[in-house]
Amino acid sequence: MQTNSSVFLGDKFYNREHVNFILFDVLKADSLNTFDYFADHDKASIEMYLDASNQFAHEYLFPYLVEMDRKQPELIDGRIRVHPIHKDIMRQSGENGWISLLASNEVGGLQMPSTFSNAASFILGAANYSGCVFVGLTMGAAHLIEAFADQKYHSIYLPKMFSGEWQGTMALTEPGAGSSLSDVASTATPQADGTYKISGQKIFISCGDSDAVDNVVHLLLARVKGAPAGTKGISMFIVPRERIKEDGTLTSNDVTPIGVYHKMGYKGAPIAHLSFGENDDCIGWLVGEENKGLSYMFQMMNEARISVGLHATSISSAAYYASLKYANERLQGRHIAEKNPENPQVPIITHADVKRMLLFQKTFIEGALCLELQCSYYADMMRVSDGDEKEKYHLLLELLTPVAKSYPAETSIISTSTALQIFGGYGFTKDFIAEQYFRETRIHAIHEGTTAIHGMDLLGRKVMLKNGKAVLLLMQEVMQEINIAKQHENTKAQAIALEKKLGQLQELSMHLINVAQKEGVEAYLSDATLYLELFGILVLAWQWLKMGNTCNENANIDQHFKDSKYLSLNYFFEYELPKTEGLLQRLKSTLRVTVGVDKELID
Amino acid sequence: MQTNSSVFLGDKFYNREHVNFILFDVLKADSLNTFDYFADHDKASIEMYLDASNQFAHEYLFPYLVEMDRKQPELIDGRIRVHPIHKDIMRQSGENGWISLLASNEVGGLQMPSTFSNAASFILGAANYSGCVFVGLTMGAAHLIEAFADQKYHSIYLPKMFSGEWQGTMALTEPGAGSSLSDVASTATPQADGTYKISGQKIFISCGDSDAVDNVVHLLLARVKGAPAGTKGISMFIVPRERIKEDGTLTSNDVTPIGVYHKMGYKGAPIAHLSFGENDDCIGWLVGEENKGLSYMFQMMNEARISVGLHATSISSAAYYASLKYANERLQGRHIAEKNPENPQVPIITHADVKRMLLFQKTFIEGALCLELQCSYYADMMRVSDGDEKEKYHLLLELLTPVAKSYPAETSIISTSTALQIFGGYGFTKDFIAEQYFRETRIHAIHEGTTAIHGMDLLGRKVMLKNGKAVLLLMQEVMQEINIAKQHENTKAQAIALEKKLGQLQELSMHLINVAQKEGVEAYLSDATLYLELFGILVLAWQWLKMGNTCNENANIDQHFKDSKYLSLNYFFEYELPKTEGLLQRLKSTLRVTVGVDKELID
Repeated sequence: MQTNSSVFLGDKFYNREHVNFILFDVLKADSLNTFDYFADHDKASIEMYLDASNQFAHEYLFPYLVEMDRKQPELIDGRIRVHPIHKDIMRQSGENGWISLLASNEVGGLQMPSTFSNAASFILGAANYSGCVFVGLTMGAAHLIEAFADQKYHSIYLPKMFSGEWQGTMALTEPGAGSSLSDVASTATPQADGTYKISGQKIFISCGDSDAVDNVVHLLLARVKGAPAGTKGISMFIVPRERIKEDGTLTSNDVTPIGVYHKMGYKGAPIAHLSFGENDDCIGWLVGEENKGLSYMFQMMNEARISVGLHATSISSAAYYASLKYANERLQGRHIAEKNPENPQVPIITHADVKRMLLFQKTFIEGALCLELQCSYYADMMRVSDGDEKEKYHLLLELLTPVAKSYPAETSIISTSTALQIFGGYGFTKDFIAEQYFRETRIHAIHEGTTAIHGMDLLGRKVMLKNGKAVLLLMQEVMQEINIAKQHENTKAQAIALEKKLGQLQELSMHLINVAQKEGVEAYLSDATLYLELFGILVLAWQWLKMGNTCNENANIDQHFKDSKYLSLNYFFEYELPKTEGLLQRLKSTLRVTVGVDKELID
Repeated sequence: MQTNSSVFLGDKFYNREHVNFILFDVLKADSLNTFDYFADHDKASIEMYLDASNQFAHEYLFPYLVEMDRKQPELIDGRIRVHPIHKDIMRQSGENGWISLLASNEVGGLQMPSTFSNAASFILGAANYSGCVFVGLTMGAAHLIEAFADQKYHSIYLPKMFSGEWQGTMALTEPGAGSSLSDVASTATPQADGTYKISGQKIFISCGDSDAVDNVVHLLLARVKGAPAGTKGISMFIVPRERIKEDGTLTSNDVTPIGVYHKMGYKGAPIAHLSFGENDDCIGWLVGEENKGLSYMFQMMNEARISVGLHATSISSAAYYASLKYANERLQGRHIAEKNPENPQVPIITHADVKRMLLFQKTFIEGALCLELQCSYYADMMRVSDGDEKEKYHLLLELLTPVAKSYPAETSIISTSTALQIFGGYGFTKDFIAEQYFRETRIHAIHEGTTAIHGMDLLGRKVMLKNGKAVLLLMQEVMQEINIAKQHENTKAQAIALEKKLGQLQELSMHLINVAQKEGVEAYLSDATLYLELFGILVLAWQWLKMGNTCNENANIDQHFKDSKYLSLNYFFEYELPKTEGLLQRLKSTLRVTVGVDKELID
């Protein structure tokens, strides 16, 4: 079996300086501790936390990256067997207090802003994505229990989850209901004691079972007998793999793993097919009220969606730094104007096209990371604000979530592919890490809602929110940066370019509203995926402008560092922003190709 | 081990009707038999040959697709062990006369136009790319021997290669010379008997060793002692793994496989690391004249480049048909305007975005196949014509080769990724074939020259050929189709759109010539990869217009078939052609980002 030591990995999977720049210079998120809720987390403690995360990533995650890929989880004797380090990762994360980071002091948590926990999650995911999902899922599930389940359940589940002894999942997807949640068919039958008997199957459940923990706590969607059809009849239940007997010991709750998926990448994390109530002995405890399950689940899903975008970015980061190291070391060819074959070969980073491939990755990764942390910052501000202010952050987060999930997910496919390309023939071999990253990141455009789903969410729901108020708020945020950027010579042209694009986006919106009215919803949403791509590029351009403004206005930042950012900013506006041209052209076309067409013609 | 039977493959990997349409309606390639050289190959015999290829693909290739992926070649006891079916594939291909198809009657070949052999190769590659490379490489190597090696070598090598007992390779790449052929360091020392002692290492040699054949004939590049540095000092040698003793038996020629690459895909074909002359006993026979090796090799490389583009397309075709079948069968969600969750779910092909994803694949595949066969047709016409006519086809082929290689290679990454996406979560699992195609096709943007190399070939050499004559000839070909298309209502708008684009391409050329003069070659070529992408889209648009014209002007074609083509034509012009907007904008920009920049700023 190949292990890390036999594979070229490079020596770096992210750049801490860039993370700090975003957190403390761009977002100035350390000032979140001026709010009571976050008062414990000053810059020094955050830096210590990131240091610890970095060390953990180097000790518990990165060293097992290749092994987890080569030795995938297997279902043996009714239990999914995972890489043994997963147990240490969970327990250690528990001991370090990382699983309860986001939880409130009331339930034993640390009340850390998610901006920082997501920055740490980026570091961990860049080291080994499969290695960090147990922790992330457990945090999300615990958050749901804290937020919506009756308090009596808090003491039963949260301490064990926070310690890393138990893990959490979200159990939504079913064989007949992938993207279509309204078709969830699992059933919950009320019992006299207030509990429910659960019956059904769930598929694609991340960390749905494993021997890394003593228990698995599923937050499961099911339909109470007699509930309305569609999404309005879905309830949420706590369904542990093992339930607690009166004497405090655990006993089977009739949850059976019936399969583990073998996947093209992201192999370290077990994705399970589970059966609930095969022996009519699976008990579930209702979370909140009946038929409100989907609204509760969306809290976890929205957090998970930011996490997906973040980890598409983190895997891309690892691939980028491996390719950057290779590009600096690999000698091949000569400067294009050099004719003498007797002169020595040069590192391939000398070649313009290799620089282009590196800058493409770099500007995507830093721009996307900035976006993910921007969204996390909005979530934190939403928590500590009220009234209009709270609504503002809520709407911004709602609007940006599908973009923050899907744009990085889609772009990471190309970004990791570009890293692979820099390795040439070696990139296609198992002796170099690039191919693994290319395989791993491919999941992100699928799980937590495919790109098409998010395109429709963005164009069909989010841009309409409160009569377009969310979009208006975002435009204000962007215009604010544009106005600052216009005052500096080295960002002025980019500011003008982005302003022009915003105008085009508004024209497009008018056009699309017209389409909706004249041709109906199908035509309106038919190219929603392209709309999301357009939106994504503009949002990243905004983030880059923001980074440029920070460099212009902060005298404490090192000049070399600033020059690197200006170069990236230029790259993004010269090479990425123009991609909106074709998207705008298509989106403004009045010709429908995919609507009302006979499917037999696609043969 | 998974085999085909445990994986969802669909039932179709290409569409014969589309292949026939291109061959007989669009290219009218059956009329090639009006030339003496190709007189034996009339439409009926070609159809029989394609029938036989189809049957072979179903019997010898497709059934082993998954097995070849799961059980990769291994180097055991000094020999690379491959899937046993490879031996049958080679012998059967030999018996069917397929390895000698393209060779001249003089050396026992069938003198078939490459247009048809490539159409068959598309079918075989769509069934199982790894399964068809031995045959293709052997054809190419045999062609080199026939064309450039002294006649006395013909009888030694060609019959054994044509029978499938021996195979051929091209052995170019070395550890210190990947894309930089001028740095080939293998040496050839002249011996008194006219042979050469060969010494050196070659890497990434496709089918460089295997137990499927009795001998491997390497067409190897090396430097004769004292030869000039760079590409001007490279010679070509025939270097068999086993050389023939006087008694006719084989004896080791000191060629040692020292490794087999384990790869992310395309696993069925062994890619070898070879050592030549470890015991100073490796004999090579010079092909043609000393120091002309690279020009000979380019014949094989140019054929191989068309083959790479063709097979990026063939793998994409297989992925497309699998996803099409799934999209027609998988029930999920409801029509977008349907609000009642109690109504049954619909096949996902109903959804506009799924149609978009299918049409993206379909129009790429059919457009690219048309381009590859167009190029093959030019190669055939070049062979049977003289003077200006010959030059015309030669120039067109030279110009289009980098595009025909790289545009499909790059697009196939996205096309197979799109197929995978249609499967949702299943697409990421090993239970469905999509992920294998996604892994397999990734090699094509790398081998036979990376995309960057071809971009520079196109912009740096090919558009300059004979003072731009090649481009002029291509424009004439395209304008001819535009003028025809303008006469029909259903292709007129597209004709005008493409004409406008040609104008923009000409403006761009003027701009770039200016850049070359004012800023030098590095700036001129810095975005050659983007130029190639632009060129690729325009060339595919031309092919689609040509297919549209064929439908308009041929009354014998079934109306449903025509409607399918018109839909695809619309799709390509509505969704793909607009992508040139952003490329044009970037290519016409005067701002350099990747030229003259300090590499330390890329961190």
